[in-house]
Amino acid sequence: MRALQLTGPGTLELREIPIPEIGPAEVLLRVGAAGICHSDSYVLSLPFAMREDPLTMGHEIAGTIEAVGSEVDGLAVGDRGIVYLCWSCGVCRECVRGRENVCLAAGRTAMPPCPGLGPDGGMAEYVAIPANSFVAIGDELDFAEAAPLADAALTPYHAIRGAMDQLQPGATAVAIGIGGLGHVAVQILTAVTPARVIAVDIAQDKLDLAADCGAALGILATDETAARILERTGGRGAEAVFDFVGTDSTAALAVQVVAPDGAYRMVGLGGGVPGIDAGPAGGPGLPWGATVRKSYAGTRSDLAASVELAQRGKVRVEVERFALEEGRTAFERLDRGEIRGRAVLIP
Amino acid sequence: MRALQLTGPGTLELREIPIPEIGPAEVLLRVGAAGICHSDSYVLSLPFAMREDPLTMGHEIAGTIEAVGSEVDGLAVGDRGIVYLCWSCGVCRECVRGRENVCLAAGRTAMPPCPGLGPDGGMAEYVAIPANSFVAIGDELDFAEAAPLADAALTPYHAIRGAMDQLQPGATAVAIGIGGLGHVAVQILTAVTPARVIAVDIAQDKLDLAADCGAALGILATDETAARILERTGGRGAEAVFDFVGTDSTAALAVQVVAPDGAYRMVGLGGGVPGIDAGPAGGPGLPWGATVRKSYAGTRSDLAASVELAQRGKVRVEVERFALEEGRTAFERLDRGEIRGRAVLIP
Amino acid sequence: MRALQLTGPGTLELREIPIPEIGPAEVLLRVGAAGICHSDSYVLSLPFAMREDPLTMGHEIAGTIEAVGSEVDGLAVGDRGIVYLCWSCGVCRECVRGRENVCLAAGRTAMPPCPGLGPDGGMAEYVAIPANSFVAIGDELDFAEAAPLADAALTPYHAIRGAMDQLQPGATAVAIGIGGLGHVAVQILTAVTPARVIAVDIAQDKLDLAADCGAALGILATDETAARILERTGGRGAEAVFDFVGTDSTAALAVQVVAPDGAYRMVGLGGGVPGIDAGPAGGPGLPWGATVRKSYAGTRSDLAASVELAQRGKVRVEVERFALEEGRTAFERLDRGEIRGRAVLIP
Amino acid sequence: MRALQLTGPGTLELREIPIPEIGPAEVLLRVGAAGICHSDSYVLSLPFAMREDPLTMGHEIAGTIEAVGSEVDGLAVGDRGIVYLCWSCGVCRECVRGRENVCLAAGRTAMPPCPGLGPDGGMAEYVAIPANSFVAIGDELDFAEAAPLADAALTPYHAIRGAMDQLQPGATAVAIGIGGLGHVAVQILTAVTPARVIAVDIAQDKLDLAADCGAALGILATDETAARILERTGGRGAEAVFDFVGTDSTAALAVQVVAPDGAYRMVGLGGGVPGIDAGPAGGPGLPWGATVRKSYAGTRSDLAASVELAQRGKVRVEVERFALEEGRTAFERLDRGEIRGRAVLIP
Repeated sequence: MRALQLTGPGTLELREIPIPEIGPAEVLLRVGAAGICHSDSYVLSLPFAMREDPLTMGHEIAGTIEAVGSEVDGLAVGDRGIVYLCWSCGVCRECVRGRENVCLAAGRTAMPPCPGLGPDGGMAEYVAIPANSFVAIGDELDFAEAAPLADAALTPYHAIRGAMDQLQPGATAVAIGIGGLGHVAVQILTAVTPARVIAVDIAQDKLDLAADCGAALGILATDETAARILERTGGRGAEAVFDFVGTDSTAALAVQVVAPDGAYRMVGLGGGVPGIDAGPAGGPGLPWGATVRKSYAGTRSDLAASVELAQRGKVRVEVERFALEEGRTAFERLDRGEIRGRAVLIP
Repeated sequence: MRALQLTGPGTLELREIPIPEIGPAEVLLRVGAAGICHSDSYVLSLPFAMREDPLTMGHEIAGTIEAVGSEVDGLAVGDRGIVYLCWSCGVCRECVRGRENVCLAAGRTAMPPCPGLGPDGGMAEYVAIPANSFVAIGDELDFAEAAPLADAALTPYHAIRGAMDQLQPGATAVAIGIGGLGHVAVQILTAVTPARVIAVDIAQDKLDLAADCGAALGILATDETAARILERTGGRGAEAVFDFVGTDSTAALAVQVVAPDGAYRMVGLGGGVPGIDAGPAGGPGLPWGATVRKSYAGTRSDLAASVELAQRGKVRVEVERFALEEGRTAFERLDRGEIRGRAVLIP
Repeated sequence: MRALQLTGPGTLELREIPIPEIGPAEVLLRVGAAGICHSDSYVLSLPFAMREDPLTMGHEIAGTIEAVGSEVDGLAVGDRGIVYLCWSCGVCRECVRGRENVCLAAGRTAMPPCPGLGPDGGMAEYVAIPANSFVAIGDELDFAEAAPLADAALTPYHAIRGAMDQLQPGATAVAIGIGGLGHVAVQILTAVTPARVIAVDIAQDKLDLAADCGAALGILATDETAARILERTGGRGAEAVFDFVGTDSTAALAVQVVAPDGAYRMVGLGGGVPGIDAGPAGGPGLPWGATVRKSYAGTRSDLAASVELAQRGKVRVEVERFALEEGRTAFERLDRGEIRGRAVLIP
Repeated sequence: MRALQLTGPGTLELREIPIPEIGPAEVLLRVGAAGICHSDSYVLSLPFAMREDPLTMGHEIAGTIEAVGSEVDGLAVGDRGIVYLCWSCGVCRECVRGRENVCLAAGRTAMPPCPGLGPDGGMAEYVAIPANSFVAIGDELDFAEAAPLADAALTPYHAIRGAMDQLQPGATAVAIGIGGLGHVAVQILTAVTPARVIAVDIAQDKLDLAADCGAALGILATDETAARILERTGGRGAEAVFDFVGTDSTAALAVQVVAPDGAYRMVGLGGGVPGIDAGPAGGPGLPWGATVRKSYAGTRSDLAASVELAQRGKVRVEVERFALEEGRTAFERLDRGEIRGRAVLIP
């Protein structure tokens, strides 16, 4: 089969490899679509490889079950679904609580094994996955629009769910960066909270996309952005700020506009440093009571919720489709900020 | 009457001033005790005065009602109580929700008026307070032990309440700095959560106090502290870390030992900068899902809860009593770290 | 001034009475609109009077401040607003927590004083209210549409807020009875939760109203209703059922269709008895984990949230306007089930 | 091996049967102890058998792994543990959320398969269990004291966790029936909440046990019980009432003493009918805002929490040990109310 593989630092190749074999607790998925995430770009930019062998990339995977392991119950050939990306241990204290994304087995600062970042991922014709990572999507959802739910919906959903206390009637939510995750975040906020959503981006077309997704207001990122958000919130700031970029400048903006007792969620992994200290109030830092959190992925239950939102038409991922052969082109366009929504590979 | 006043930058004087008059919505309190807080010390250290006129210090106040304003219902001369220190507006969206400590009227980064920091406080024979800041304590509680509840119990209670999700059976809580707030925090944690409490301090006698308060383990602050806490938590870290110091070194410790999805609460205002960034995992920073929050004071409901805990004997503030005349001595001993628990002035 | 008064059991009279005087902590409201609630009808049906003196009815009140008591801060003549109907003590443990609707002063089974049911209400040209019961609505909202927020939005909002855990993506909510409260409940559910809403009523025009309000499905109340709801929920039932009628038959329906771990909220006061017992499972009763709650009114914060939803256009009360003189006609039409939404008196 | 089996309606026999074989996803447990629950008694009292074949009873099981199925990871021969009693599907929406006790596969009113009630249970020398129902207990806990955690701790823990909002400082919790579950409930309440616990029972020795477990007050069940509880709670009632009996009289007591906005949890399955209606307030029924819930078992995470509490010494089940041969005697003593804590069979 064909697979888009990382064969060395920064080297992406379309290669012919054998169809993977499955273990007794796995299923083989014929891939219908695989999304391209900024974290894939990040991996491509690293000066080292993720592993010695060529690695098939792709952690946003949708497809049809082609074969079922001998010990798998409840799944059948032909079932359509997507793949939960935290391949966690399933038995630790956190997994038992339904918090698989912080599985104990991953250690304190790492994350559970994720397809395309350790095990082979879904930018290929077939992929072997643990049976319990398969999440059924029924017959209606399009694969291209379903695949990105695995990350581009899961991750914002998790971040938003952790800020629901802040998102009461009258609240304002700010979404910074209206890319793959951001444009879904605006839809989720609209569907599950009564908050008014303000979108921030450096490009007007992304703000237009945010408006289509339900944002009440779009603001171009300039030196005036913080002032404008404060003005629109009576000087108070936004009860929740979701930063899908994570650079120094977006972190600075978030700290300036989050409200007291508000929620600032760092989702984008741009390495930015928010200016936070334990000093007394009155300065330019984080207001009293606001929480800062670096959110990672989400739980299996968060993914189920994301799928429900898509099935009921409340979340619809905007996608641009590429053939597997066009993979490098798709990555380049993503890096140049030219993708509207999510780029998706169709094997 | 006599009052301990800040008369200029760093200048504390015992002065004779008139007994304050009260407005129709206020009560006059004969002060039974007034606690001394590190924030009082901090104010004394500032190179400027808080206001032009001499300011009577003291925001931890207990006493007996001596006179009642014309429009006050439900309070009577002779009632014993303590003073809620957030003199908030009472009508804004936050106050209506019972979140008076982040009252809108205070603005985005400031705090509501607090006795002893703006209006005159309780280090005097009498103090005028808004009637709705009076919280009854009944006849049993000693004034000296009750006064510190107003801050030394309220503030940790609020921080702990905001981390209850993290403090399930099996969880570990770390309290850094076993002073006025810290030794009460250990008791509150013991009373309202099933968590195991680890206390950290630079002095063994403070760890002994923590043990008396219910801590399961005391660790002296050294280069080994983080390693020891990780060892005791299976490498996972503590589900909640309460830092009552707030310097660079305690902030670094907190970041190193908080668990994924854990809660790190900056309570002490030492100006420390925790090393937090939006970069990918694997580094030395904050683990996935952990929240950082700079917590201020607490709500009126938190204070009511603190009083309940004291009335049921679950929280008992350790105090050293000083006469009003000994005020400067008490401040000096506090600054040298020589107070066991809380220093309290008895007018 | 003219006032619609209960002058004896079941006797409603439009009378000329003096404009009320206000105390120092009260404001005088020139009434812009007063809603008519089923509980007003219920009071009219009682064989005894609520109090000896004639009682001006009406607890859903909107208007303009005409005069301000001497000790009232922050309110001014000309301010537009509605009236929070729990005139609670403000100082008890529950009030301090922001749970004024279960104020301790009311005792264990009663409710706090409510205008129109003890103190004089708003079906008059003027009404005196405690200043802290005034909730500003700004300049945009129409009085007729704003007045019902005081109960017809507050009460469902409170019931819904207490069931938010059940109303995750994928959940179904059932609203039984699409009258004054029910049609607002459908809008609130649509605005603040991702749940699919099923409306149940005995009249098709009420189901049409529900559809306009956002319901995904309307089902006429027949012997088949339970079966149809179970069919639409995969046999599982609805995660939340809000009963705005409260008779034996609606209670039986609710018990039959609420899901395990679901929420069944009795809001309508029809005196119905749900068949609930402590026996083992397998029978026709309440499924495991479901909660039953008789919900009363809501908190001041719930009312603020309701106003926010109206101001942002997410909730709009459907009203039929009547002059004060037409009061009896309006009551009769309400009793006959002929009102679409809420009947509102305009003095 | 020997097994205590239900061989017909009301017939319990000690029989010699083959050691069970295990499937690839199961483990074989050598039973160290098996608790006897009132629900076992209830099953014995039924006029029909649970299944056609003889059924080995016992759903509170502790033991050592003797053999491991071919597809089981992470468990080894010699591991000590207890058995989670909800053998749920593991893949449905509820299971994925960690709510296995209301697994969708069980249907709307039934419960998931439970050892001893459908599949063979633990009153035998060996039992085959699904590997994912095994919960490790480490080397310290005694089997006899650990086995009852599977139900006698799990079930109250789940009921209490669902009432944590009510159990703030100052709250009162009432536990009715201080048997196997009740005496553990008192300990859990003491460990995880600041509530004052009032125990109610018909026998003084049970109240003595409650006092040992941390209850602040014990009240014999008489006509005065409700009055005494109301007196001790200022006429307000208890914020949470846990009924481990569930007869008409305990249900009536619960309704009379639960506070507004309180939690009444029906845990005991005595078939009692609480007098609840949807009528207006003022009558003898449920106060405003209180919730009634029929709670079943608990989640896997609740069981993990229960084990943590036992490992830290905060919960210790009081047990009376019997040999397997003494099984009928143990049941008889349980039925006569003569067991202090839990009866446990040691094979």
